[in-house]
Amino acid sequence: MIKVGIIGATGYAGAELVRILTGHPGAQIEWYGSRSYIDQKYADVYRNMFQIVDASCMDDNMEKLASLVDVIFTATPQGLCASLINEDILSKTKVIDLSADFRLKDVSVYEEWYKIEHKAPQFLEEAVYGLCEINREKVKKARLVANPGCYTTCSILTAYPLAKEGLIDMDSLIIDAKSGTSGAGRGAKLPNLFCEVNENIKAYGVASHRHTPEIEEQLGYAAGKKVTLSFTPHLVPMNRGILATEYACLTEKVTEEEIKAVYDKYYRDEKFVRVLDPGACPETKWVEGSNYVDIGFKIDPRTNRIIMMGAIDNLVKGAAGQAVQNMNLMFGKRESEGLELVPMFP
Amino acid sequence: MIKVGIIGATGYAGAELVRILTGHPGAQIEWYGSRSYIDQKYADVYRNMFQIVDASCMDDNMEKLASLVDVIFTATPQGLCASLINEDILSKTKVIDLSADFRLKDVSVYEEWYKIEHKAPQFLEEAVYGLCEINREKVKKARLVANPGCYTTCSILTAYPLAKEGLIDMDSLIIDAKSGTSGAGRGAKLPNLFCEVNENIKAYGVASHRHTPEIEEQLGYAAGKKVTLSFTPHLVPMNRGILATEYACLTEKVTEEEIKAVYDKYYRDEKFVRVLDPGACPETKWVEGSNYVDIGFKIDPRTNRIIMMGAIDNLVKGAAGQAVQNMNLMFGKRESEGLELVPMFP
Amino acid sequence: MIKVGIIGATGYAGAELVRILTGHPGAQIEWYGSRSYIDQKYADVYRNMFQIVDASCMDDNMEKLASLVDVIFTATPQGLCASLINEDILSKTKVIDLSADFRLKDVSVYEEWYKIEHKAPQFLEEAVYGLCEINREKVKKARLVANPGCYTTCSILTAYPLAKEGLIDMDSLIIDAKSGTSGAGRGAKLPNLFCEVNENIKAYGVASHRHTPEIEEQLGYAAGKKVTLSFTPHLVPMNRGILATEYACLTEKVTEEEIKAVYDKYYRDEKFVRVLDPGACPETKWVEGSNYVDIGFKIDPRTNRIIMMGAIDNLVKGAAGQAVQNMNLMFGKRESEGLELVPMFP
Amino acid sequence: MIKVGIIGATGYAGAELVRILTGHPGAQIEWYGSRSYIDQKYADVYRNMFQIVDASCMDDNMEKLASLVDVIFTATPQGLCASLINEDILSKTKVIDLSADFRLKDVSVYEEWYKIEHKAPQFLEEAVYGLCEINREKVKKARLVANPGCYTTCSILTAYPLAKEGLIDMDSLIIDAKSGTSGAGRGAKLPNLFCEVNENIKAYGVASHRHTPEIEEQLGYAAGKKVTLSFTPHLVPMNRGILATEYACLTEKVTEEEIKAVYDKYYRDEKFVRVLDPGACPETKWVEGSNYVDIGFKIDPRTNRIIMMGAIDNLVKGAAGQAVQNMNLMFGKRESEGLELVPMFP
Repeated sequence: MIKVGIIGATGYAGAELVRILTGHPGAQIEWYGSRSYIDQKYADVYRNMFQIVDASCMDDNMEKLASLVDVIFTATPQGLCASLINEDILSKTKVIDLSADFRLKDVSVYEEWYKIEHKAPQFLEEAVYGLCEINREKVKKARLVANPGCYTTCSILTAYPLAKEGLIDMDSLIIDAKSGTSGAGRGAKLPNLFCEVNENIKAYGVASHRHTPEIEEQLGYAAGKKVTLSFTPHLVPMNRGILATEYACLTEKVTEEEIKAVYDKYYRDEKFVRVLDPGACPETKWVEGSNYVDIGFKIDPRTNRIIMMGAIDNLVKGAAGQAVQNMNLMFGKRESEGLELVPMFP
Repeated sequence: MIKVGIIGATGYAGAELVRILTGHPGAQIEWYGSRSYIDQKYADVYRNMFQIVDASCMDDNMEKLASLVDVIFTATPQGLCASLINEDILSKTKVIDLSADFRLKDVSVYEEWYKIEHKAPQFLEEAVYGLCEINREKVKKARLVANPGCYTTCSILTAYPLAKEGLIDMDSLIIDAKSGTSGAGRGAKLPNLFCEVNENIKAYGVASHRHTPEIEEQLGYAAGKKVTLSFTPHLVPMNRGILATEYACLTEKVTEEEIKAVYDKYYRDEKFVRVLDPGACPETKWVEGSNYVDIGFKIDPRTNRIIMMGAIDNLVKGAAGQAVQNMNLMFGKRESEGLELVPMFP
Repeated sequence: MIKVGIIGATGYAGAELVRILTGHPGAQIEWYGSRSYIDQKYADVYRNMFQIVDASCMDDNMEKLASLVDVIFTATPQGLCASLINEDILSKTKVIDLSADFRLKDVSVYEEWYKIEHKAPQFLEEAVYGLCEINREKVKKARLVANPGCYTTCSILTAYPLAKEGLIDMDSLIIDAKSGTSGAGRGAKLPNLFCEVNENIKAYGVASHRHTPEIEEQLGYAAGKKVTLSFTPHLVPMNRGILATEYACLTEKVTEEEIKAVYDKYYRDEKFVRVLDPGACPETKWVEGSNYVDIGFKIDPRTNRIIMMGAIDNLVKGAAGQAVQNMNLMFGKRESEGLELVPMFP
Repeated sequence: MIKVGIIGATGYAGAELVRILTGHPGAQIEWYGSRSYIDQKYADVYRNMFQIVDASCMDDNMEKLASLVDVIFTATPQGLCASLINEDILSKTKVIDLSADFRLKDVSVYEEWYKIEHKAPQFLEEAVYGLCEINREKVKKARLVANPGCYTTCSILTAYPLAKEGLIDMDSLIIDAKSGTSGAGRGAKLPNLFCEVNENIKAYGVASHRHTPEIEEQLGYAAGKKVTLSFTPHLVPMNRGILATEYACLTEKVTEEEIKAVYDKYYRDEKFVRVLDPGACPETKWVEGSNYVDIGFKIDPRTNRIIMMGAIDNLVKGAAGQAVQNMNLMFGKRESEGLELVPMFP
């Protein structure tokens, strides 16, 4: 039984970790960290857990936690994990960081986009980018995993095989992404009020969203060269779900069957990636509550572009589900243990 | 391994049966019956099941099915199960009917409220009303279970202990219920279109909804006398969930602690009934995707009324989850097997 | 041209006043008061008003305002209007208070339910309760109007004719009300976040909501005796709209035609009250954006109860629209001037 | 007073025409055409119009109508207007067609994208494309106006000034559009059910949506050359609103101030186009219920792309509002008469 500690257990991603781990046969949560709710019953903060979780919230003492648990999940704002982590902690326990602190290898890129100083750059090289489908072997041996962002998971997996195979012109890549509102977190802010979000759609962070360099770095590894792309997120009036619609020029004449074969080559054996039949468009609702990525595409011969589409549940494959998938890999468990969540419809 | 056949597998309740049974370790679906989609891949009708269910839809041949499976779920419109069922079928297999055909003991009440002739009244006496928390022992021995309605499950369980203990004046009982739109089914009807339901709330079936006599019959058994009550359903712009707000005059002077003790007496050991702490109001979102009933109450000394509130997921405890709970009982399984679904929030 | 000042122009009710008055041919807003946004452009706070309103927000200086405008609307939290108002102000300008400060005639009831001291009880007697359909003549002569609450407007108008005619047993009256989320205001509070409200319904303020004594007082005047009733509000995942479902025992044998005739007697000439044909149930969407109250009812002979239903837009007839209706009456304008808003569907 | 006839008055666009024209001081609806609801009271089909519209629905007799009214609006499926129109009708009355029948000048393009034969190609040359901001002078003299599509109105106006000035590389133009569900019409179809649309987002019509050639034709006129672009529509869980996010490479080095100046050059005097301050992103909610187009943009120096964003209410500026704007122009009225609709928020 893997003993788990969560720092930031009362944000939406933290709560989703609790939901998933509660149903995980091989893991047990020992620590529900939440600075904001110390000593309050966890089930008073998230009443879905009434009579399921009996524990109270604890503070964010990572040092102490390191001695108690086998793995620490940090589902906290940027900068916190980097400010707490040290060699002593990593010598005692594994860490899966759901924030952005260890996702970007280049500390200057981090500091430019996040506008904060990085407090633990010495671990950047060691940290493994936890996109399981791509870095599986490295994750298995990691002490510190940087769990990918929600938009990035969806954006990267949707384009990865074609980037890797050189089938798309990376300079032409445009990602137009749409997210449910849980991605904005549980902070009590005016723009996240029901009446502001409901019956509304808007773009935000245009040409400046922090997930941009993360997508660029990873797709750059795939393409074997530096990638600069356009990424535009949108806020959609729904709780969960991300849809990424991606546009790129094809580098050669290919058929949809050939493209399908390329996707299948990379994802055929991936339990959590479902490549839809040609012509089918993914919908976020069809993956809700699950760890799946659904991928579809369409070639537009008029413009010589391919339109790729990917859908995930931002809190599962985009956060907590992927974190548990990483945990399973790091501890030699079956990769899908505790993650066989059937999407809920409607 | 229980072999399961579903008739009506492509309605919302049928689809929820598929979702739940797919994760049930002791059951296996052998037959996805759906007259409307015969020979189509089930996963083309419900794309959440892509790469999870490989089967195609079959017809509604109950005779044939009886020889193939251990239990048949009928998630079909009123009248269908009664028109197909017979002694031969029941001698070979168990039947759990999610329609109203066997819920009301009095055939004339059925025919009056449902406006159709009952084709199999000979099984009414044998049929067990499958509200597990109340009829557990009878369910265990049943061949034919009438799975309760969604509104009725929520309405009955919320008031049952107080009715049973004589603490509320049954003539004063008023149930004001609110339901998500999945309760209206997947039929392509104008009133169920997104733009008609969204940003809207309305009452419907006022003083005439078919779940009324079902609630009256069951609460009548509890109270030990004939009950006539007001029941008003409302349509709410959300997918899932039923909230029942119930008003009744108290028959004696009691405190909230005493009421809480009565609820605890009946539900303390019930895994799927969660009696909230006094003062807390149930919310449908906190039970979404799960088999829980959350119950709260408040005494209003100014009016000498008690306001009882109950919340369920209409597709789980109000339909498919309860049906599986019944199946577990009928086959001697652990009652909660396959039903330890943690509510999803948000 | 009536010169108007608004204190609290950046709450949802204040913003709706701005929307309505912007289209009012006989009124002009001179003062957009908002303590929170002083000196900011109003159109930066409410971007729907971009290029429509050019003004910036001002402070809450009621004294100064009294010399500048013909009427002051206070769309502010409880207690503010009472703390600012005085004889000098009322000698110079008219005041329409959208808060609860002057709705209840009995100061002790106010202080009991609102838990704050009343700072201007000397104006309680003079203040006119601005439910236009009932107090029209008094409103015309008023200096100070207490604009009714949203739930109360809907609840009172729905039951008023039957209460007045003695057709319902007032002790049996139960009001189960459902409101859109704009009623909770624009404050950045966790329970009002999109992800907490969406896909959810709950009761709140059970047996303790502050609109209860207001409804009781007004229906008490209608019935000619003290009324104590049950009132339960619910939060619905939609922006606008209130639906009140009201239950009461009939005091005599009447037909639906007779009830319809009673409603027509009171409301036939009321432009903003639409009594639906017997059997029709009001829906909030059908009045959205307008000043209408839609009323329907159904007699249940089984229980001898009548179920009355009323629907309004909480921000219009439940707040800003009614306030403008009061203004029109106070200034001798046509009552519907600027209020001929056609409901928007969908 | 302009006498108006509507064919297709019970679709969502037709109903919006009724809502707007009801408040138009210079027009009067004489004919509510609706094949599906002949002889039914219009207010029974759209209950928001109860006590506002007393008329019943009529058939689609365009010949007869031509003698009765000054202008006919056809808010009908593709092909109907073309199959009914003739010289005799156009000699008696003006026609504003909200379908696609007369939007594309090249009949073969129409037949290729719409898969139906064009029944009245002889009027294609005469028909004026009714995008008022661009074709104002032609509209004033037109007998037959082709009212633009909803996606197209938003897409074209957002890019028009930059296309016209040659500031964007038209071959690089990608339009990612998101629409509320009223755009799908009031037909009772499974994909438009509440439970299928709610909590969901998907792309549809990828690389094949019929609005594509319409956008290409109009932006081609602006750019002075043939344009081929990518256009992807998405379905969003909200009633109203379209947001178009448009990506294009800049043809020269320009600042945001220079781009703003270009937009202002074209739109400064346009009442219904609001160019937001640099950096601001349009949101559909801020234009809801109004005839506005809100436009924002952002230059991304990293990719040398400009991201342009436009928001409209698809039923107003995207359909009925623009149709009325065309009517005003055709009859010499003030262009904004009856269209000074203040956006409703929330």
